[in-house]
Amino acid sequence: MGFPLSRSMSGLSVHRDGRAPISRTLPEEVPVALVYNGTTHAVMMASPGDIADFAYGFALTEGIVTSLDQVLEFEEVSHDSGIEARFWLRDDRQEALSARRRFMAGPVGCGLCGLDSLEQANRALPVISDDGLKLHPAQVVRATDDLRSLQVLHERTRATHAAGFLVPGQGIVTLREDVGRHNALDKLIGALARQGIDPAGGAFVMTSRLSVELVQKCAMAGCAALIAVSAPTSHALRLAEAAGITLVAFARQGGFDIYSHPQRVISEVSDVA
Amino acid sequence: MGFPLSRSMSGLSVHRDGRAPISRTLPEEVPVALVYNGTTHAVMMASPGDIADFAYGFALTEGIVTSLDQVLEFEEVSHDSGIEARFWLRDDRQEALSARRRFMAGPVGCGLCGLDSLEQANRALPVISDDGLKLHPAQVVRATDDLRSLQVLHERTRATHAAGFLVPGQGIVTLREDVGRHNALDKLIGALARQGIDPAGGAFVMTSRLSVELVQKCAMAGCAALIAVSAPTSHALRLAEAAGITLVAFARQGGFDIYSHPQRVISEVSDVA
Repeated sequence: MGFPLSRSMSGLSVHRDGRAPISRTLPEEVPVALVYNGTTHAVMMASPGDIADFAYGFALTEGIVTSLDQVLEFEEVSHDSGIEARFWLRDDRQEALSARRRFMAGPVGCGLCGLDSLEQANRALPVISDDGLKLHPAQVVRATDDLRSLQVLHERTRATHAAGFLVPGQGIVTLREDVGRHNALDKLIGALARQGIDPAGGAFVMTSRLSVELVQKCAMAGCAALIAVSAPTSHALRLAEAAGITLVAFARQGGFDIYSHPQRVISEVSDVA
Repeated sequence: MGFPLSRSMSGLSVHRDGRAPISRTLPEEVPVALVYNGTTHAVMMASPGDIADFAYGFALTEGIVTSLDQVLEFEEVSHDSGIEARFWLRDDRQEALSARRRFMAGPVGCGLCGLDSLEQANRALPVISDDGLKLHPAQVVRATDDLRSLQVLHERTRATHAAGFLVPGQGIVTLREDVGRHNALDKLIGALARQGIDPAGGAFVMTSRLSVELVQKCAMAGCAALIAVSAPTSHALRLAEAAGITLVAFARQGGFDIYSHPQRVISEVSDVA
């Protein structure tokens, strides 16, 4: 029962000198159905690990639940065709569930006209207040190095993303991996919620580029800083500015860029408490 | 009117020696609503170029249309909130449209139970017949090099993907770029269809990793070979095997791996016609 996270697959390696059989460890991906009160809300392709974290995180970042006590029951069921994450929610969440269905980017099939659906894709986000989070530049640099060293699935497959939670003074305290960067962040957010850790106390660190959807998830989770190894889109950056999020990108080779709310990254060693 | 493909954005560069203002050219992304017969089918975040190619390609790879003569009218409308791609389809496509809405991976909100939605996510694909397409290893190697040199948006932003169409003897004849790899391939497939070029005559070449969804799009377009610079998932590989597609991955540094249907990559120079 269950799916492996990676598989050894056979192929032919072709180089100038000819061809030879090879075997590579590649990441698995499976359809995961997110099912609320008996009805499928979404089917996402994902790495088949930490499914409960993924399902809780997705429910939180999509606004289907706002706290875990709204979940009456959760069950993970493996089928040949994929994994079902089944939630039974408190009655008062039915309205949020129906509303969110019309608000999601993706193949919504929502019955709305084009203009309405565009306006709903640009969903209103909570604004993060200035909460006292402070990051030292050396902590940011170390976090992206640490993230790489903690990526167990990536170490095997060289083909998966990771999202880590950086707590100043503690480093990366939790990390989740997935073939998809959005899923990796949902898994991290779900894992923190299930461990009772408030995302307001640290920063999310991603191995990937930063899209609008990652900034939306960060805001929904109430995290004040988003750090990425690669580039942001300009839209992601405007959204982070509006949501009060410190957006750090190109965090690699000992340096990084800050694009919004730089006050959370202290500029002098003497600022460190 | 319209959105720029990239924007120059200001930030702070932080390095060991301190911090300095910088400006970087970052890719734009906007919501694109795909609207058929007055109803939104999907809203996707995409680079705001080649929208007609994207819309036609998406309609083809999702099976909403099977040929362009099923489109009665197409219109691209820019709003402040994003871009609407409006199709009016022949009456006989309404059934395919309704059926496909229930079959898509993503936030489907389809009213199905979990198991049914998982089975529909693993949609049946056309099987590519052995059609005579032959690729020389040197053509594969040259194609990935050529792809890089043709990526105009990536050259500016260092943050976008590309999909190219490789025709043996001609090299990369068409290329499309997007912040999302799935969108880049849809744009390419739409561009080929609008130019009257049959994808059966060549190979798709991607700058990215290979997921299940890219193999699905390749099969729907009737293309016999999919070449990627980076890794495939093991599920993508099984799907390519079943769909009769030659899957080439890790195509870089002068070599590549073949994981399915290797007969289309000729092994001897003497095999070249």
